[in-house]
Amino acid sequence: MTYCTAVLVEAGLVIIADTRTNAGLDNISTYRKLHLFQADDRMLAVATAGNLSITQGVVSLLSEGLENPETGEMETIYRSKTMFRAAQLIGRAIRRVRTVDGPALEDVDLRFDCSFLFGGQIAGGPMRLYMIYSAGNFIECSQEAPFLQIGEHKYGKPILDRAIHHGSDLYDALKIALVSMDSTMRSNLSVGLPIDIAVVRRDTITPELIHRIEVGEPYFHDLRERWSTALRAAHMAIPTPPYGKQAAAGGPTKPAG
Amino acid sequence: MTYCTAVLVEAGLVIIADTRTNAGLDNISTYRKLHLFQADDRMLAVATAGNLSITQGVVSLLSEGLENPETGEMETIYRSKTMFRAAQLIGRAIRRVRTVDGPALEDVDLRFDCSFLFGGQIAGGPMRLYMIYSAGNFIECSQEAPFLQIGEHKYGKPILDRAIHHGSDLYDALKIALVSMDSTMRSNLSVGLPIDIAVVRRDTITPELIHRIEVGEPYFHDLRERWSTALRAAHMAIPTPPYGKQAAAGGPTKPAG
Repeated sequence: MTYCTAVLVEAGLVIIADTRTNAGLDNISTYRKLHLFQADDRMLAVATAGNLSITQGVVSLLSEGLENPETGEMETIYRSKTMFRAAQLIGRAIRRVRTVDGPALEDVDLRFDCSFLFGGQIAGGPMRLYMIYSAGNFIECSQEAPFLQIGEHKYGKPILDRAIHHGSDLYDALKIALVSMDSTMRSNLSVGLPIDIAVVRRDTITPELIHRIEVGEPYFHDLRERWSTALRAAHMAIPTPPYGKQAAAGGPTKPAG
Repeated sequence: MTYCTAVLVEAGLVIIADTRTNAGLDNISTYRKLHLFQADDRMLAVATAGNLSITQGVVSLLSEGLENPETGEMETIYRSKTMFRAAQLIGRAIRRVRTVDGPALEDVDLRFDCSFLFGGQIAGGPMRLYMIYSAGNFIECSQEAPFLQIGEHKYGKPILDRAIHHGSDLYDALKIALVSMDSTMRSNLSVGLPIDIAVVRRDTITPELIHRIEVGEPYFHDLRERWSTALRAAHMAIPTPPYGKQAAAGGPTKPAG
């Protein structure tokens, strides 16, 4: 499995991805799932989940280019005029890979399984974040729920639901995304370290941070420990349910006199 | 959807279930999914998830009885000799309903979708907790991971993974199960109040607590608020990631002199 999440707040974009792939329990590898496309006028990040042969094929096409059906010109992700056009290009790349590989995958009962987070900014346009589905259609992240997730998304969603809002500090957003990743890694062994991170401040068109958290890195280790400790303390601080015998026994029991 | 979880700790059993059912967004109802079977010699609880017609059919058969293939006698859940035998009875009831209704459900493209948590104690035997699948096979809860879940289980699993252990206090286990339910309700609208609760202390064969948490109940409302507040405080207390420009800018910036 994979877990990737991206957060788009007022200050900018955070996108993180794990790197574990598995084709059966005895075939575990580390593959990059966070791909950056940088040029003078753009800073784009694509995170991938699903069948690795499909997602690598799509990512390759983004650099190699596909014909734009409107203009007839070859379009690469470095030449798309807007974020929306670039998201459409990713959609077309997905459909191209499906046309080429889909039937053969179906023949061996493999589902055409892929999804993408695509975020960033092209100079002159706004910063945007999209989630692109295996059919090539996509949705855009909203201010009301300023994050998107792909892959094994459920374990890590509660903390995002509670803690992220449009006004969150950029590095708070990164911290919460890492807590979300930690929850996922604890509950699903097929999501694992290292974790790739990119942070892009709005309107800068350059990455402020590109980092890989390796196994044993002290900050992430400390974050996991602190989060565990805090959760334990949090539920300990909630009063015992006021139901049943124990609750009845919780009051003063000293005999009068 | 449904969310049910059961915790079996040294002190006893906690089992909780939501009550929301939906057949489309305009057909939302409240149905009991936690069923208790009590007699002088036994205290048994069955929580259900999946297609309501299937699960209600199975629960009805547990009371009405099925022929035991070994003895030829009619067996009800009130007469099973051990918890293991009772779990087998539930498995047979599932298979009976599948035989009767499965083909017609398939004709209208409905999957035979059901799962059950079954816990409790029969006098003279140990307290046990099982999860029974739609094929009628089942697994037993272990001391190493002393909880089981059915239905929409992922959102509520991280807190159980971290907080529940075999030595947990019985009402701590209830509290953590309620936090797990809260996380699920926040992330999936089709899981909702009221919540049914049963708590059974080991070797007592009587329920110590049977309770329904209704909408607006102060304790559960307070638990949700406290948990939200504590999670916010918990992630606020984690240091900012030591990466990138902000980290660099985090040091002393006052000019010398």
